[in-house]
Amino acid sequence: MSEDAFQDSYPDELSHCYGCGRLNRDGLQLKSYWDGEETVARFRPRPNHTAIPGYVYGGLLASLIDCHGTGSASAAAGRAKPEEAPIRFVTASLHVDYLRPTPIDAELEVRGRIKELKAKKVVVSATVSAGGEVCARGEVVAVRMPSSMLSD
Amino acid sequence: MSEDAFQDSYPDELSHCYGCGRLNRDGLQLKSYWDGEETVARFRPRPNHTAIPGYVYGGLLASLIDCHGTGSASAAAGRAKPEEAPIRFVTASLHVDYLRPTPIDAELEVRGRIKELKAKKVVVSATVSAGGEVCARGEVVAVRMPSSMLSD
Repeated sequence: MSEDAFQDSYPDELSHCYGCGRLNRDGLQLKSYWDGEETVARFRPRPNHTAIPGYVYGGLLASLIDCHGTGSASAAAGRAKPEEAPIRFVTASLHVDYLRPTPIDAELEVRGRIKELKAKKVVVSATVSAGGEVCARGEVVAVRMPSSMLSD
Repeated sequence: MSEDAFQDSYPDELSHCYGCGRLNRDGLQLKSYWDGEETVARFRPRPNHTAIPGYVYGGLLASLIDCHGTGSASAAAGRAKPEEAPIRFVTASLHVDYLRPTPIDAELEVRGRIKELKAKKVVVSATVSAGGEVCARGEVVAVRMPSSMLSD
């Protein structure tokens, strides 16, 4: 597993995301890494991330897949063209299949796989597992962030 | 618009969801209502719900669509069989298309439409709008909550 999280390569102005920004103090601060050809992130849900007591609410799993997906897209684009500055991707679409209830008292492992890699679009498939069992499966279509989203 | 929020009809033990549980004090406490044949919820993002500064992160929009979807499913099932106790639905799958950046300083309107209604499965399509403009579009496949998810 590589040492630097993808999200830690984002410049400060792009590091405020609730899901993965290192500068969002209230947020989830998801950190994603390469693990061979796959990408991986680990996350421990907070007690208030409840759906039905004992299980994680679906919106959290969607958030983890979303941010791990855009982070993986950025990393894959960077690996393909290491001479370029890191590119921030945003989500065009997100799909999540909830396969079984996800326990709230376990560390979750999010795994991503680059399914398609183009200059402006990366498709990442992902799983979320707890205790080695896949609880949710998803796909993120990530697109290069339009420059119009930057305020300056 | 009807007066009681769908989520306020959930029994206490099913009211802890981070997205819509009235007993989750840190959560989003989404409230959904009938508006004719559609369902509607309104939500004002918190300042830390950032993606890129100025815009809402995708995981929040996914959470809103998710909880509004399961709430709408429960309400639709209840309207079809008013003699039964309210049924709690959970998400089998969630899809979100992010159509344009969603401003963080606006009240968001989530609208749902019942696309399919069966005894154990309800499909709800949804939009999230800001200032009258649709920013995200989604679909929730909601299924009747399995009794095995209840701890007692």
